[in-house]
Amino acid sequence: MQEGFMGPHAAAFDRAEYDRRLAATRAAMARAGIDILFVTDPSNQNWLTGYDGWSFYVHQGVILPLDGDPCWWGRMQDTAGAQRTVWMPEACILGYDDRYVQSATRHPMQDLAARLIGMGQGRARIGVEMDNYYYSAKAHAVLGTALPDAALVDATALVNWQRLVKSPPEIATMRRAARISERIARLAIELAEPGLPKNELVGEVMRAAVRGVGDDWGDYAAIVPLMPSGADASAPHLTWNGEAMRRGEATFFELSGCVRRYHAPLCRTVHLGTPPDEMARASDALCEGLEAGLAAARPGNTTQDIAAALHAPLRRIGIHRPNRCGYPVGLSYPPDWGERTASLRKGDLTVLEPGMTFHFMPGLWMESWGLETTETILIREDGPAETLCDLDRTLFVKP
Amino acid sequence: MQEGFMGPHAAAFDRAEYDRRLAATRAAMARAGIDILFVTDPSNQNWLTGYDGWSFYVHQGVILPLDGDPCWWGRMQDTAGAQRTVWMPEACILGYDDRYVQSATRHPMQDLAARLIGMGQGRARIGVEMDNYYYSAKAHAVLGTALPDAALVDATALVNWQRLVKSPPEIATMRRAARISERIARLAIELAEPGLPKNELVGEVMRAAVRGVGDDWGDYAAIVPLMPSGADASAPHLTWNGEAMRRGEATFFELSGCVRRYHAPLCRTVHLGTPPDEMARASDALCEGLEAGLAAARPGNTTQDIAAALHAPLRRIGIHRPNRCGYPVGLSYPPDWGERTASLRKGDLTVLEPGMTFHFMPGLWMESWGLETTETILIREDGPAETLCDLDRTLFVKP
Repeated sequence: MQEGFMGPHAAAFDRAEYDRRLAATRAAMARAGIDILFVTDPSNQNWLTGYDGWSFYVHQGVILPLDGDPCWWGRMQDTAGAQRTVWMPEACILGYDDRYVQSATRHPMQDLAARLIGMGQGRARIGVEMDNYYYSAKAHAVLGTALPDAALVDATALVNWQRLVKSPPEIATMRRAARISERIARLAIELAEPGLPKNELVGEVMRAAVRGVGDDWGDYAAIVPLMPSGADASAPHLTWNGEAMRRGEATFFELSGCVRRYHAPLCRTVHLGTPPDEMARASDALCEGLEAGLAAARPGNTTQDIAAALHAPLRRIGIHRPNRCGYPVGLSYPPDWGERTASLRKGDLTVLEPGMTFHFMPGLWMESWGLETTETILIREDGPAETLCDLDRTLFVKP
Repeated sequence: MQEGFMGPHAAAFDRAEYDRRLAATRAAMARAGIDILFVTDPSNQNWLTGYDGWSFYVHQGVILPLDGDPCWWGRMQDTAGAQRTVWMPEACILGYDDRYVQSATRHPMQDLAARLIGMGQGRARIGVEMDNYYYSAKAHAVLGTALPDAALVDATALVNWQRLVKSPPEIATMRRAARISERIARLAIELAEPGLPKNELVGEVMRAAVRGVGDDWGDYAAIVPLMPSGADASAPHLTWNGEAMRRGEATFFELSGCVRRYHAPLCRTVHLGTPPDEMARASDALCEGLEAGLAAARPGNTTQDIAAALHAPLRRIGIHRPNRCGYPVGLSYPPDWGERTASLRKGDLTVLEPGMTFHFMPGLWMESWGLETTETILIREDGPAETLCDLDRTLFVKP
């Protein structure tokens, strides 16, 4: 069998790793009674086939039958990118005509439906990722109309769940991303000072993230740097602006290095000048909670046990977090570096297993300030979770 | 009436500009028989309300009735970001409980449906953006089930079409973005040399883009830098890697500055060493086609006239482009800086009007090389279109 292009963009892992992924996904398909799966989530596409490219703004996906190679399907001009990035032979790369792109009269799902019928799947139970990114309501409606004899079955997060336990090569890749996360978090802390415009700080961080560490070049993270200051840090998802950093304000840095699309997010907070007592106490309780959460993050315990351990010391000082405190993390594309399966929160009963990785992310977004001290963690065979990044777990204070 | 927070993140335009946008959108709603519109596309949310934040990875949107202020609706923790960025009063900011986030048992659309019923819209004709970003098939299904007496009407691109003709303040903002585009394109051309790792070049470009020009800090562009080299440049959407640039290869730089979410994309190509005759001839024909396209880009002509003018000189040397050669551009969020309405292609009959802006984007993705020379253009009152960026339109050749 002819293998795909093996240039510098080629799929990041060897064939055995992709075979493992296909087998796990197919077992889940069989359990769900799905004959063929259509995968739109870009991270799932990459995880199954290696496909990489900034083309997810148009309809595209991976077609995975129960037997044989998967196919990558997308816009004709993007088949050139698929040839360079997927592990399958060229016959498994399918392109649709450019006239389907962003048209009011044609829809790419008409092309997909015709291909599925051509594959003998016109009466199949077809899994579709109804709540994953980039599978639109319209795509679903057009596909359903064009496949009147098929059954479209919700397969939201079916692939994502197979990604929860990482293989050794995946963990190795996340460790490489963690080296970049450490470097850029340290850089942000070093550079932070009164008068420094936020965008200048972001520029240095982005440059360092892409330059990478050692032989590892940095890829773009699935989320841009978030670094609000002062009262703005009560909002979790503001990005930056051109305002100068000010004495008397805390700024959190929510960052991740990225290697071959794998992330290891890391957040730290810098206060310029002496922090108010309330913030210092909150930071101490948060660090105590993180330590307790790490201790609870071991095989056999559940995701909610981590949340419970974290929240106890915070509650003792009167802080009640209404939000989840983390999510699985690994391979991803914009707009999210989370995997969208388990959550670290009360009521979530996912049993922890070795090889799972989470962004343990207990942000404190208070009325007039915010604080983020977080870790990317790896569940080990026993004992507390390992933190993939090595950086002091504290509220950094600078003059 | 209490106005929103007026800090450094506040909505980018004055109230008259937002009033203009609401009026245009409501007129389109009335024409489509829509009582209330639910807007999920992040660029449409920002355009109507100013909402800005990297929170579009969870379900959120703008609720626009025919009368009264719109409401921003999203995850509870993101209401803090909404307070800082939208122009409406706080009563128009609605948050849903964190337990709805990425849950297998609850869906945010259940909360939205309850609110719409509370607003007396349970039997309304509700416009939803069925093929815009982040409105998933599942969201649509849940909303439909939870609103059994309402009619969900497809309003894909209804708001996007209102954005096609830019107001003077929007054009002014795009001009500011164009200054950044010029700077980073020049920087990439200057730095390109054999042996330079691509990721290092990307790092310098990203840093410069965010530092901005003069008083304008740079925002993140909706697409990361695309800069494949050599044969990889036959693929339009590869990003970068750690490979060194090589003599004898062309690299295209697809870049945009961004100011307050407004873009002015600009692509140029550098060849290291003497380009092959075929590429030089193609570049000459492409530049002739761009010039002809600019001349055709005037009020009263249509979008397809631009494509026809571009393609004539290319066809004379045997190049037949199967792809559209551009799209409207302005305010945007990942994953696309295009507006997803008109396309510059045969069969698209959108009549050009002053104030329309397009990325005139005739990429050449050939069998073994690629070339991009593009312009962001503004349709004027008469005469050829204006190019917002000022940079030689040529294939740059370096030793």
